[in-house]
Amino acid sequence: MGQIIKGKPVADAISTVLTKEVEELKAKGITPKLTIVRVGANGSDLAYERGALKRCAAIGIDTEVKELPENIEQDDFIAELKKVNEDKATNGILIFRPFPKQLDESVIKYIIAPEKDVDCFSPVNVAKLMEKDETGFAPCTPSAVIEILKYYNIPMKGKNAVVIGRSMVVGKPVSMLLLNENATVTICHSKTQDMPSVTSKADIVIVGIGKAKMIDSKYIGNEAAVIDVGINVDEKGNLCGDADTDSCIEKASMITPVPAGVGSVTTSILAKHVVKACKLQNNLV
Amino acid sequence: MGQIIKGKPVADAISTVLTKEVEELKAKGITPKLTIVRVGANGSDLAYERGALKRCAAIGIDTEVKELPENIEQDDFIAELKKVNEDKATNGILIFRPFPKQLDESVIKYIIAPEKDVDCFSPVNVAKLMEKDETGFAPCTPSAVIEILKYYNIPMKGKNAVVIGRSMVVGKPVSMLLLNENATVTICHSKTQDMPSVTSKADIVIVGIGKAKMIDSKYIGNEAAVIDVGINVDEKGNLCGDADTDSCIEKASMITPVPAGVGSVTTSILAKHVVKACKLQNNLV
Repeated sequence: MGQIIKGKPVADAISTVLTKEVEELKAKGITPKLTIVRVGANGSDLAYERGALKRCAAIGIDTEVKELPENIEQDDFIAELKKVNEDKATNGILIFRPFPKQLDESVIKYIIAPEKDVDCFSPVNVAKLMEKDETGFAPCTPSAVIEILKYYNIPMKGKNAVVIGRSMVVGKPVSMLLLNENATVTICHSKTQDMPSVTSKADIVIVGIGKAKMIDSKYIGNEAAVIDVGINVDEKGNLCGDADTDSCIEKASMITPVPAGVGSVTTSILAKHVVKACKLQNNLV
Repeated sequence: MGQIIKGKPVADAISTVLTKEVEELKAKGITPKLTIVRVGANGSDLAYERGALKRCAAIGIDTEVKELPENIEQDDFIAELKKVNEDKATNGILIFRPFPKQLDESVIKYIIAPEKDVDCFSPVNVAKLMEKDETGFAPCTPSAVIEILKYYNIPMKGKNAVVIGRSMVVGKPVSMLLLNENATVTICHSKTQDMPSVTSKADIVIVGIGKAKMIDSKYIGNEAAVIDVGINVDEKGNLCGDADTDSCIEKASMITPVPAGVGSVTTSILAKHVVKACKLQNNLV
């Protein structure tokens, strides 16, 4: 019977370090600032935004929210984004996605200033992630996975890590980050044959496949660490992950819950990336 | 005892298709053109260049070589590259790397026009590779691996493919391409523990680790297909791969030789990418 490992202690530890770093920056007359660009007022965007603003405030990072109308045209959106790019006070930019239909993500991703793109929207940061160029910014959620593994002293070097899911939001980026930590990385997905035979050999299982409670104990090897990146709503209307926590914990050594797992850490990573961006922009790295 | 599978039939098959496509383009008044940018006159660059020019000529693709002095300064190199970017007749650009020391690859890669970058030098194409955006160009060598597997009817969908090596030249890009083909992909490297236990379970093994004849039969499962991307010189001065072909073939169903394997296919892929670039630039895709 394994242990539930929560995100909050990880987030708190990151915040403590950042608070000190921000104090040092302020002593130099520099205050890091995050600008959030939001189109419309989607409920899940607003929920994440509240968490991000609260986290940044606690750490001492300035924030601004640019709310744009749901029906904004592409050219107007781009004009607004360019203003944020050029705003000297803004070090990091977070843009909520997906966009409404009239906005073309495949165009806009080339507009955001890569050096302020703290959640890996720009292709420049996607390429840096793949190339292990650490001047870039990995997306916040996969980065949170790595921080959790590190915080709980789960060794990655030389270990077998299996990633379930190959999305650009979780699977592919977390695979690159695990490689950077010297894990042997296997990427499984919907076309994988006999997935349990693959995943049950892993020391670390990262689950991000987007299916509620799909992964149960038959997918998990003895003493594996399981990080559940899924966010779904179960038949009773409660939040749940892609892993069936109660089943997996019978074999896993550790597993993150949903809620209170990976999701609790992402805003701390966002804040960490804003501070990093601020330091890079001020030649302090 | 397995079979040696050579690159030449694959290259020939690609060339036959391309020759017809180029004829059709010429009937529309369009001739695809590759411009090679070479700094200095390194022997291996010249050897590859000869092969590329010959291949393009056979297919009907125009070519031009821009040879620049070994000691060219960064600004002058960038000015020359911008001329090639803007040359309307040029559809594809190949730039030999590594560069001499005075040229900064991390700057220059952002200058090459992504739509003409037929060997995935630009970060835009690296990101497109990771995102499975097929308007981009994967690097030629990993693409050659996939073409060989397809030509020899080696199934990839749902199969276990293991990639040995995590370089940006071979390992990471070929992993992304194998995922696109719906393989379950494992990436091994120098820090992998007990590598033979991992690789011997694979249906497909891609070897690109840069160590002469390192991979022998103990790494290979029965009936696996082995693609050897290594190019090394052995103790007798002969070319050899990263796999010990004679040993591996005892267990593998098929293995590519070195020379006459993957290396024979890359210039055909280069030509294929030039034709694709030409079509995209003329809105013919």
